[in-house]
Amino acid sequence: MDVRKALLTAAGAGQRTLPLQTIVAGDGRVRTVLRVLLDEVLEAGIEEVAVVVRPGDEPAFVAAAADAASRLHFVPQPEPLGYAHAVHCATDALGGVPFLHLVGDHLFVRAGASGDARELCGMAQRAAACVSAVQPTREHELVRFGAVGGRRVPGEERLYEVQRVLEKPTPTQAEQELHVPGLRAGHYLCFFGMHVWTPSVMDALDARFRSGDPRAVVLSDVLDEVARRERYLALEMRGRRYDLGDRYGLLAAQLAIGLRGRDRERVLDTVLDVLMQRERTRLEGAEPSGDA
Amino acid sequence: MDVRKALLTAAGAGQRTLPLQTIVAGDGRVRTVLRVLLDEVLEAGIEEVAVVVRPGDEPAFVAAAADAASRLHFVPQPEPLGYAHAVHCATDALGGVPFLHLVGDHLFVRAGASGDARELCGMAQRAAACVSAVQPTREHELVRFGAVGGRRVPGEERLYEVQRVLEKPTPTQAEQELHVPGLRAGHYLCFFGMHVWTPSVMDALDARFRSGDPRAVVLSDVLDEVARRERYLALEMRGRRYDLGDRYGLLAAQLAIGLRGRDRERVLDTVLDVLMQRERTRLEGAEPSGDA
Repeated sequence: MDVRKALLTAAGAGQRTLPLQTIVAGDGRVRTVLRVLLDEVLEAGIEEVAVVVRPGDEPAFVAAAADAASRLHFVPQPEPLGYAHAVHCATDALGGVPFLHLVGDHLFVRAGASGDARELCGMAQRAAACVSAVQPTREHELVRFGAVGGRRVPGEERLYEVQRVLEKPTPTQAEQELHVPGLRAGHYLCFFGMHVWTPSVMDALDARFRSGDPRAVVLSDVLDEVARRERYLALEMRGRRYDLGDRYGLLAAQLAIGLRGRDRERVLDTVLDVLMQRERTRLEGAEPSGDA
Repeated sequence: MDVRKALLTAAGAGQRTLPLQTIVAGDGRVRTVLRVLLDEVLEAGIEEVAVVVRPGDEPAFVAAAADAASRLHFVPQPEPLGYAHAVHCATDALGGVPFLHLVGDHLFVRAGASGDARELCGMAQRAAACVSAVQPTREHELVRFGAVGGRRVPGEERLYEVQRVLEKPTPTQAEQELHVPGLRAGHYLCFFGMHVWTPSVMDALDARFRSGDPRAVVLSDVLDEVARRERYLALEMRGRRYDLGDRYGLLAAQLAIGLRGRDRERVLDTVLDVLMQRERTRLEGAEPSGDA
């Protein structure tokens, strides 16, 4: 099984401008979030990236993709009918082959030398199955993610066989249905924002769109169905994902990238300097006032 | 003397997109840098803001100004002939009255409850003179700023009478010409990126443009001339300025604003969480590799 195509979803109301934000990459270059994501994707061996956008956003994305723009294939989502619908819009563009999917509003900061997308694609190719990237996540953060339950694959340190998928489960649901033996107490495997899906995911998604209200289709329900029918794996990533839709997500991502990159000493100095200034201001009695 | 107009310069090649960046303001709202600067300006009693832009950038600035766009008056700088030229382009728009000037690529983080621009305008109005905001700055940073020399105004804690202005002086020049009694050793008063100028600054500037190459005109030279001719004050600000043209300037500004604002506990948690993750990664032996 070869993974040569990727899907990036970036049409959501609160999300469409996030890939256009600029950030200082680990190599010190000022790049857009989109360009950083494309680096991650291209390094994984992907040749073509379908980008689901709101109609009219294409020129801004071409500019933001810079020298990687030739790899993009735009898929307009004509109406804002949600995430599952955005993925469904790309059915023809992906043409019935396995593909890597990244959400366009996350940044991924790798732990080692190699990229998370590359590791995920390698695993999917070896297993010839769907693999979702996951990360152990504290119970109180379940409200923000899709989460999986399953069991560890014997002999593999970070690989799980997925048995259930639930979208934003309550702690009670998670405790009853998503328990994963071997995880730290109070932790569940939540989606990392990166998947490799086989055509069977698109088939199951298409069946749901044929039979009901497009707004009611939830991607996690589709994945739950896939997990019951065929082998579906989850790989625990060693990197970190930062949700840029979160108010301080870009700050956290920039800090994490900066503190791992070429300029790490300078970034650490910057952080410590601001923290020191803050303490000095507090000690001088000019207390924070809530408006800056 | 009343200050009712402001000038924002945002036409420079490396600077024109900086006011369009988004940031989370102290009140938790996601705003553009331009909108944050306009808040600072409007709070100081300014009614109209002349914005010097590269021709064609106007629509992006209107969008970034959001509900404050009606206060803007655009002044296109037809050719990229530098900072002094940009200010000179606004001569007609400012119409021979005193005005507040902010550089468009800085963010200002106040120390107290009231804004820096407001304090500066108040001082200029009381003194009926030019006042530049300054900040004691370490010698090794002189390469980045205009700097002033002078003496403290008796009875005023943070007010100086300016005698000399030099653009990016060498440490030797600064030591010989910009010594200010009472400052910490190795510190000089550098520009903060905020001034109130009387029409005599524009007159002196105009005289230079009439007599020579526009690219050779340096604003600090004009201010030096003004300081020799009339009373010119410098007010030491208690807030901090962040130069967004600096590679990690936006990061530092966002941190500083976040750590003083409504969400300060959350921002501090975010910073500490990223620092902790970094330490954990280091301890696990996955050393930073320079590419993130």
